[in-house]
Amino acid sequence: MAPGSRITAAIADRVRELASDRYAGRSVEIFFHPQCFQSSGHFAGDDSVRAQAFLDIANDEDFAALWFARGGYGACRIAEEMIPRLSDAARSKVYLGYSDAGSLLAALYKSGVAGLAHGPMPVDITRESGDAAVERALAYLIDRAPHALEASVSPETCTAAFNMAVLSQILGTPLQPDLAGHVLMLEEVSEHLYRIDRMLFHITGNPGIGRVAGIRLGRCSNIPANEPEFGQTEEEIVRHWCGKSGIPYLGRADIGHDVDNKVVPFGRLPATT
Amino acid sequence: MAPGSRITAAIADRVRELASDRYAGRSVEIFFHPQCFQSSGHFAGDDSVRAQAFLDIANDEDFAALWFARGGYGACRIAEEMIPRLSDAARSKVYLGYSDAGSLLAALYKSGVAGLAHGPMPVDITRESGDAAVERALAYLIDRAPHALEASVSPETCTAAFNMAVLSQILGTPLQPDLAGHVLMLEEVSEHLYRIDRMLFHITGNPGIGRVAGIRLGRCSNIPANEPEFGQTEEEIVRHWCGKSGIPYLGRADIGHDVDNKVVPFGRLPATT
Repeated sequence: MAPGSRITAAIADRVRELASDRYAGRSVEIFFHPQCFQSSGHFAGDDSVRAQAFLDIANDEDFAALWFARGGYGACRIAEEMIPRLSDAARSKVYLGYSDAGSLLAALYKSGVAGLAHGPMPVDITRESGDAAVERALAYLIDRAPHALEASVSPETCTAAFNMAVLSQILGTPLQPDLAGHVLMLEEVSEHLYRIDRMLFHITGNPGIGRVAGIRLGRCSNIPANEPEFGQTEEEIVRHWCGKSGIPYLGRADIGHDVDNKVVPFGRLPATT
Repeated sequence: MAPGSRITAAIADRVRELASDRYAGRSVEIFFHPQCFQSSGHFAGDDSVRAQAFLDIANDEDFAALWFARGGYGACRIAEEMIPRLSDAARSKVYLGYSDAGSLLAALYKSGVAGLAHGPMPVDITRESGDAAVERALAYLIDRAPHALEASVSPETCTAAFNMAVLSQILGTPLQPDLAGHVLMLEEVSEHLYRIDRMLFHITGNPGIGRVAGIRLGRCSNIPANEPEFGQTEEEIVRHWCGKSGIPYLGRADIGHDVDNKVVPFGRLPATT
């Protein structure tokens, strides 16, 4: 389902074709909720339509996973109301997405749902060489393939990942999860460096975020020109705010709004048995 | 002084000329701290230079007011450190500005400084018919002229005003002031409607903001085209989030990033004697 913006039927077709090609002979079925293609102004259907679509998938035990179709904007408008309506099936399901869908990942994580991950979505197939991103998502959803994971993810570390703007805009709201002790990975797209600086002021200045184990910086892509030149790179900005807030800066993370976006589970990866 | 971005010497000259023309025969003197014209990447001097300039004016009892020269971005980087360094002179001074300078107004208000107001800055003289904005600021700074005030401001009401993005980005940080019981006026410029919606989700979802007496919506100007059409106006968006959060929506406010931007004192206007 699409918690924010809509996708086209062509995107769904391409993803289904890729899945049946790569997983021929295995019983892999991807169901695109018709809500994904609906339109209500900015959104893939109005708030009640998107909320119902979320529950249709989440609460149905016949679906092993809920794969967010696209980001855009809108997940924060339905997230809080979803939590009290989750069934046991919803609580044992895997959820995968990123960008705007992070608002729902946050709310689900706060409510104790365990199977959450930040990673590629169906819409990523529209990127150049986007098949690789969708294949990685499928490898995680179907086989929990270790190669799909961000390299620093391990059973020894609690992790979480967010788009900076999305995390910034849920801080202090009922959606903000407890990330104490987590390695927090942050990525951004299409934001000026002065805004990245301001968001990191906001994020690192939040008392809850102050309890993370450290921050890793994902890719910041498609940054519009700053007027005048900002004078610092995004990594210098993160180092500045980590230094000021006393949060350890742990280096780069292999995530971003691109085809190389790796999967970051929320919480601790189960040790392999 | 300029807490974020720089201004040119030509702007300072125009403002001084306008002031000496309008207040001929009265001892009105405007001092532009040389820091206003400095440059350090994005900023009007680095953090320490801007912080020192702020203290040079704020802590000097020979200045009756500190007039922020321009917004842009950068006030949040120096605000928290300023508070413990304020002298008695700083605590009895008038401060006027808006946009990014709101981060400093917030920190000063939180620390108990009383003479704060949201209103035009010297840089507004560069707008078409910008003299009117600067004249209004001067009328407030020099004579506390009632005609400079936003129409709903009265001794019966606690008020505060912010740019939405600036307020959003200080929520949960040490700069967030207690606005319980205040009429909160919000304005925005150059933000997509989906971002205005997301910021209002964030702002109205904050427990502190939940205690305001109500929200008034200032002007939202220069809104980039939403793709697709958002489907709601900025006023419908504010009504939506006020309704959801139980914050009274009180109608429009006569503030914005424009020459008609009226002055909004923080707190309660002293009753005229």
